[in-house]
Amino acid sequence: MEENTTQRPLDALNHARGKKVIVELKNHKQLVGSLKAFDIHINTVLDDAEERVDGEVKRKLGTIFIRGDAIVLISAE
Amino acid sequence: MEENTTQRPLDALNHARGKKVIVELKNHKQLVGSLKAFDIHINTVLDDAEERVDGEVKRKLGTIFIRGDAIVLISAE
Amino acid sequence: MEENTTQRPLDALNHARGKKVIVELKNHKQLVGSLKAFDIHINTVLDDAEERVDGEVKRKLGTIFIRGDAIVLISAE
Amino acid sequence: MEENTTQRPLDALNHARGKKVIVELKNHKQLVGSLKAFDIHINTVLDDAEERVDGEVKRKLGTIFIRGDAIVLISAE
Amino acid sequence: MEENTTQRPLDALNHARGKKVIVELKNHKQLVGSLKAFDIHINTVLDDAEERVDGEVKRKLGTIFIRGDAIVLISAE
Amino acid sequence: MEENTTQRPLDALNHARGKKVIVELKNHKQLVGSLKAFDIHINTVLDDAEERVDGEVKRKLGTIFIRGDAIVLISAE
Amino acid sequence: MEENTTQRPLDALNHARGKKVIVELKNHKQLVGSLKAFDIHINTVLDDAEERVDGEVKRKLGTIFIRGDAIVLISAE
Repeated sequence: MEENTTQRPLDALNHARGKKVIVELKNHKQLVGSLKAFDIHINTVLDDAEERVDGEVKRKLGTIFIRGDAIVLISAE
Repeated sequence: MEENTTQRPLDALNHARGKKVIVELKNHKQLVGSLKAFDIHINTVLDDAEERVDGEVKRKLGTIFIRGDAIVLISAE
Repeated sequence: MEENTTQRPLDALNHARGKKVIVELKNHKQLVGSLKAFDIHINTVLDDAEERVDGEVKRKLGTIFIRGDAIVLISAE
Repeated sequence: MEENTTQRPLDALNHARGKKVIVELKNHKQLVGSLKAFDIHINTVLDDAEERVDGEVKRKLGTIFIRGDAIVLISAE
Repeated sequence: MEENTTQRPLDALNHARGKKVIVELKNHKQLVGSLKAFDIHINTVLDDAEERVDGEVKRKLGTIFIRGDAIVLISAE
Repeated sequence: MEENTTQRPLDALNHARGKKVIVELKNHKQLVGSLKAFDIHINTVLDDAEERVDGEVKRKLGTIFIRGDAIVLISAE
Repeated sequence: MEENTTQRPLDALNHARGKKVIVELKNHKQLVGSLKAFDIHINTVLDDAEERVDGEVKRKLGTIFIRGDAIVLISAE
């Protein structure tokens, strides 16, 4: 349907590398930061991460490692 | 029973590629978007995604990556 | 004990292919539809699916893909 | 300690094949029926199944497929 | 530190075979019975099992199969 | 950074073998006992185990087998 | 985008070895300590660990082993 389509989910995630993303967790927290790294388990590292509640910064966290199974979704900010 | 039957679940999902789908999550959220990609874990990428609550758009999310184990079901819109 | 016994659970599920089934989910929802496909993870596709609450149709969903680990049981309607 | 001991759990389950069993689920429901089939994941098929609440039949379900990970225990009726 | 130490957890469980044990479940129930069999998933079979609540027998269950992932711990009675 | 560093988590756990440890469970219970054995799933056996609530001994349990996935953390007493 | 980028999440975690980290658990507890060891399951060992509630030290725990699947995220203090 499209030329040059991303076929696999991890490819799409790879396009977000180095960009600002929002990570939503199963515990309902939102983490915002620059997507540094991820693996096939979706273990994810964010740089300059912040925890947000209702759009407001609650805590600055620096570089964080998130265990993949705690994640619901990752979107571009 | 039917000719030309889709035999495997992921084949059915493949037919929805590029089409608008509703993804229901274990955390009770609904995400609507164009099905861009998925894998055997049902890790899923939607384009032009929106979060909906009671049929109303709550947030526009753009392209999102959803971790498969957070998903309950995927239906055509 | 019986002649011609189905020995494996997925064989029993296979006998329901093309028939109307009720799928009960861990989130307590009931989905009713024609069993189109399933795999060893019990990822399941229903055609003409409906969500029911207390026996009443709540939503018509068309063809749906259900992630296996969200399922508690599948019965014939 | 005993002669002719069943050594493995699935052997014990196999002895119940064709007999009436009670399956207790993680969602606190009780299902009663004739044990038709099971596999190493404890995916289980019951014939003539009923859902019981406090010892009373709530629903007759016929032949049902239960996903193994929804099960807590299986006992003889 | 000790001579003749049991090195592996399943060895310790094996020493309890044929003895009366208490199995505590994730759903907070306690099952008491004679440990008949277990496997590497901790799927467990008890003979002469009883369900206990606050130390009192609530139900007699006979021989039961318990799915391993429902279990928190197993102790000698 | 340190000489003679323990590099792997299970090595650290191995240093606690034969010593008194506190095991905290996902169900919020605390078990205290002598660490007898563990495996790669963190299935763990304690000798002379006690259940504690708010630092007080609630029950004496003797030798217990704990299923690894019920465990949050293990610390030295 | 950056030279000398850490590509894999466990590499980032490795950079924190020997440094003070905050580990947030699925049970909402926070553990602070020096990151001694971790493995591919994110089983993690902290030295000089403390449990904190709302930024205050609640308990001193010494060296602790944390089961990986109990962890949500790890950040630098």
